[in-house]
Amino acid sequence: MAMTGVLRPSHVALRVLDLEPAVKHYTDVLGLLETGRDKQGRVYLKAWDEHDHHSVVLREADAAGMDYMGWRVDSIQTLKDLSKKVEESGLATDCCWIPAGEHLETGERFRFTTTTGHTMELLAEKNKVGNCLPLVNPDPWPDDLKGMGPSRFDHCLLYGDDLDGVVKLFTEVLGFDITEQVVAEDNHDFRISVFLSCSTKPHDVAFIRQPMKGAFHHASFILDNWGEVLRAADIISKKKVSLDLGPTRHGITRGETIYFFDPSGNRNEVFAGGYIHYPDKPIITWTSDDLGRAIFYHDRKLNENFLGVFT
Amino acid sequence: MAMTGVLRPSHVALRVLDLEPAVKHYTDVLGLLETGRDKQGRVYLKAWDEHDHHSVVLREADAAGMDYMGWRVDSIQTLKDLSKKVEESGLATDCCWIPAGEHLETGERFRFTTTTGHTMELLAEKNKVGNCLPLVNPDPWPDDLKGMGPSRFDHCLLYGDDLDGVVKLFTEVLGFDITEQVVAEDNHDFRISVFLSCSTKPHDVAFIRQPMKGAFHHASFILDNWGEVLRAADIISKKKVSLDLGPTRHGITRGETIYFFDPSGNRNEVFAGGYIHYPDKPIITWTSDDLGRAIFYHDRKLNENFLGVFT
Amino acid sequence: MAMTGVLRPSHVALRVLDLEPAVKHYTDVLGLLETGRDKQGRVYLKAWDEHDHHSVVLREADAAGMDYMGWRVDSIQTLKDLSKKVEESGLATDCCWIPAGEHLETGERFRFTTTTGHTMELLAEKNKVGNCLPLVNPDPWPDDLKGMGPSRFDHCLLYGDDLDGVVKLFTEVLGFDITEQVVAEDNHDFRISVFLSCSTKPHDVAFIRQPMKGAFHHASFILDNWGEVLRAADIISKKKVSLDLGPTRHGITRGETIYFFDPSGNRNEVFAGGYIHYPDKPIITWTSDDLGRAIFYHDRKLNENFLGVFT
Amino acid sequence: MAMTGVLRPSHVALRVLDLEPAVKHYTDVLGLLETGRDKQGRVYLKAWDEHDHHSVVLREADAAGMDYMGWRVDSIQTLKDLSKKVEESGLATDCCWIPAGEHLETGERFRFTTTTGHTMELLAEKNKVGNCLPLVNPDPWPDDLKGMGPSRFDHCLLYGDDLDGVVKLFTEVLGFDITEQVVAEDNHDFRISVFLSCSTKPHDVAFIRQPMKGAFHHASFILDNWGEVLRAADIISKKKVSLDLGPTRHGITRGETIYFFDPSGNRNEVFAGGYIHYPDKPIITWTSDDLGRAIFYHDRKLNENFLGVFT
Repeated sequence: MAMTGVLRPSHVALRVLDLEPAVKHYTDVLGLLETGRDKQGRVYLKAWDEHDHHSVVLREADAAGMDYMGWRVDSIQTLKDLSKKVEESGLATDCCWIPAGEHLETGERFRFTTTTGHTMELLAEKNKVGNCLPLVNPDPWPDDLKGMGPSRFDHCLLYGDDLDGVVKLFTEVLGFDITEQVVAEDNHDFRISVFLSCSTKPHDVAFIRQPMKGAFHHASFILDNWGEVLRAADIISKKKVSLDLGPTRHGITRGETIYFFDPSGNRNEVFAGGYIHYPDKPIITWTSDDLGRAIFYHDRKLNENFLGVFT
Repeated sequence: MAMTGVLRPSHVALRVLDLEPAVKHYTDVLGLLETGRDKQGRVYLKAWDEHDHHSVVLREADAAGMDYMGWRVDSIQTLKDLSKKVEESGLATDCCWIPAGEHLETGERFRFTTTTGHTMELLAEKNKVGNCLPLVNPDPWPDDLKGMGPSRFDHCLLYGDDLDGVVKLFTEVLGFDITEQVVAEDNHDFRISVFLSCSTKPHDVAFIRQPMKGAFHHASFILDNWGEVLRAADIISKKKVSLDLGPTRHGITRGETIYFFDPSGNRNEVFAGGYIHYPDKPIITWTSDDLGRAIFYHDRKLNENFLGVFT
Repeated sequence: MAMTGVLRPSHVALRVLDLEPAVKHYTDVLGLLETGRDKQGRVYLKAWDEHDHHSVVLREADAAGMDYMGWRVDSIQTLKDLSKKVEESGLATDCCWIPAGEHLETGERFRFTTTTGHTMELLAEKNKVGNCLPLVNPDPWPDDLKGMGPSRFDHCLLYGDDLDGVVKLFTEVLGFDITEQVVAEDNHDFRISVFLSCSTKPHDVAFIRQPMKGAFHHASFILDNWGEVLRAADIISKKKVSLDLGPTRHGITRGETIYFFDPSGNRNEVFAGGYIHYPDKPIITWTSDDLGRAIFYHDRKLNENFLGVFT
Repeated sequence: MAMTGVLRPSHVALRVLDLEPAVKHYTDVLGLLETGRDKQGRVYLKAWDEHDHHSVVLREADAAGMDYMGWRVDSIQTLKDLSKKVEESGLATDCCWIPAGEHLETGERFRFTTTTGHTMELLAEKNKVGNCLPLVNPDPWPDDLKGMGPSRFDHCLLYGDDLDGVVKLFTEVLGFDITEQVVAEDNHDFRISVFLSCSTKPHDVAFIRQPMKGAFHHASFILDNWGEVLRAADIISKKKVSLDLGPTRHGITRGETIYFFDPSGNRNEVFAGGYIHYPDKPIITWTSDDLGRAIFYHDRKLNENFLGVFT
């Protein structure tokens, strides 16, 4: 009864321009593990401490970006209930069911499009393949990890126009909390950005109001600590990966972070830190005049890339 | 709908032999903040990142130990529902209501005794006094913290005889998950210890089967990282606090930890690390022949103090 | 016989525009300790783990910058010998002796100007005031440190035109090693920058060839680890200090670093890490086409400020 | 002229009971690199950031322990001068020259025995094989390190009876500084232990007075930080290595440390931290009544193993 409903981000499906360099990036640089390839040629990957079959799906395409983001719910009954509520909410379009097996090792998924133009999915079944450690008397971490070696896929940040609609959907229909928000300096009711949690994490997804539909800012993966953020930064340089910004700290969520790009231009983040969220925690508000400090706490100013580059 | 029911440990009420040395320990060494004293002379404290009025209550008494542990639930309706379910479960005794105001800044609490002899409370209302930071454009941490400066009270470990009853109560009635368990080497159905979570934390409370009622092993507070565990260890020596064991790592929960004693002999822990728990995560099992490694991953053997000393 | 001759940077004398804001910066933000003020109004400061009376001297003036940098040698005999060698070298001008007591608690200093226009001093006597810890049975760190709390003044980076002359002076006359150098991509004999050590540190002073005399790039102070670099970065934002760049890593020296400015515009650095230098270690060479990565290993490009802003 | 005379520990030659398990330990667990084997079957190893051919030499024998420790001096002239001074000092016995080539890639070594019964060597030539990184535009660390991956062999701690003689030899003849000492509580002139440095490190070798000749307590290797000490501790458990004690901090040197044993029972240490030593730094003195805190700052008591187990 403690964690119910939507449990966590289950996968992000990304489009990449060339598959093999992308796979090499997500395995050798980021350090995910490849768990399968399907008949369509899609590549499935997971972070080491995840038990489910995959959390990242890569598809070769003509343009980079996010196809969809999937959410694991606690039961088939919840999947039925939430799919009905989403359909009835008037806050989602293109509702449909994707049959079981369309993703490897995954049950049926309820798919819909948010008012910001993002495709989301709910699912209740994805086979467990284990977290590289035994379930009896395990060590604390596995051998032979490569690259940055994050333990989990954590969240996405997405850009879209109808921020109010998507926030209403996630909070009122899907049961998420707003943990933090950025508002206009002169009108605190006008939200520029919203961070949403379905757990005790500072965010499971976040949206920034931008005049477009369905844009993808970044997918984020969690590291253990600030020392691993430095190691990730070093790996970025050693492997000649395109750096966006960092290492630094976010004001929002307090996370310790670094951003970089996959070979197709999709932005990745690895981060550590943050706080424990509870649903009765007051919302933290940032005003637009302090947006630089909210995003990049040390620099206290936004770089053009951060807002202007997305896929 | 994501975090529902029992949200978190809300307070631990400890008996101490001399009040002022205890307060000095919990403020100067551990680094909690005193938030009030009541007419009975009890002292209320909180960790800096907690919003609620208190998470530790100290009372002067002839013997050290834990009076009770309180749990924050998500609503008054949940408090009503769960109190009824606890009463009807047959797994709790001495059920009663403590009136609002008996604790400073706190609503009414439903109190009961577990089969292990521990007094537990459920509550839905405790006033928010803030986390030392503004709710608009905050810095990531406050100035002027003292001592180890943990961000939150995290969990307790308790000793008692009827482990099966208390586990049944916490899982079937209160909705907790078992995250990890220690079982007899020759009988995996015989549980020696159980770690329980009502959140995404590896534990919110844990019990070890011992032939006694209502014993208290330790109250634990969370730090940000392994560097802070070293700093805590240094503070323990600088301030001539009685060390139990550490710094080290737990096999169970993967936590990075150090144990020490307050002046009355109540054991404290500060720790960092661990993983993100979800309700569909498989239970991790440790066998009694590997108990040393489960508890103290580096030493791989238990010290006498750890099992034999409690209050 | 192991550490002989010039031992270490002993002090840097900085000009500041307003004395009290500068003192506040160097004590509250950087975390040095004020150890005295002299009749001229100069303020003396030291880092906590230094035993000598001071390592930073602040003087109010109309323009920011460095007055001089002082070097502690191992004995009065060495002071005599080196002063003679410097005078005879033809690589220094304006040689003179500053009488004992001109600096508080300091013996006589031999002063000279390098070919890059920097004033340097050699001295053999500065009174010891202790490192905030007892000499018998000490704790590993003192209480009540403020700000970033570096343990020592570490080095300066200086800009000047006649790089070859100053390098010849420091290596052939004063016995320093070149640890690393930046050279022109098309002419490895043309040095753009040289890092010099009189110890096992990766640098005790460094010079960059720039078309000017006597310019000051930064004074640097050493922290224990990368976690303290993050803490320093947070303090910079909390206290609204002007950030230059970081946290990041240097390619040169491998140091983990952050740059910021004092209220007068003098650049400060705090850093951690690096390697152990020995005189038989091969010189590490960086080519100018890779200068960005040499200086800022993660960004792999120089920001305009870093080269263009100095005092 | 800054670092002269004896520069650093150059090698430690250890006896092991079975060669291949020992090599596996020093490469897979500790993370040294094998650089050669000679006709006698000895195995040569180095830490990754060392440039010289080897720093550890393993020899199969009937009893574990240290054969000898070698010291790199700054020049052939220094080797001649120091060998003569050692011979004339009356503080060493069994003086002899080992011909060039007896160690792979190494010049002639001057060998002698200290009053504590330890065999020491001075040498001026050992071929450089590089530190796994290019000398032009290097990355800060190499790929494909295994195990704990220390950057350098750092020091040894040795047990012997005539402490005064060996200290006199190292300070008066070889030019080392005493950085710290343990003295009898009731007689501060009676030294129980002495820590000696030929550099800016807190120790390059240390001796403890014990009623025996030529005993070996441990060889120590340096890590970058406290996070790597935790990782080393985890590796010890993952690879089922015999742990002695740690992770913890030393009072002496302030180092962050963990001790463990190779398969033959030779004690190893990996550590991080400490301070920068200079020859004018006051000696830190520990009194025997505080010996526990001096050695293990957190536990503040010695474990029997630490003093009683050696090879």
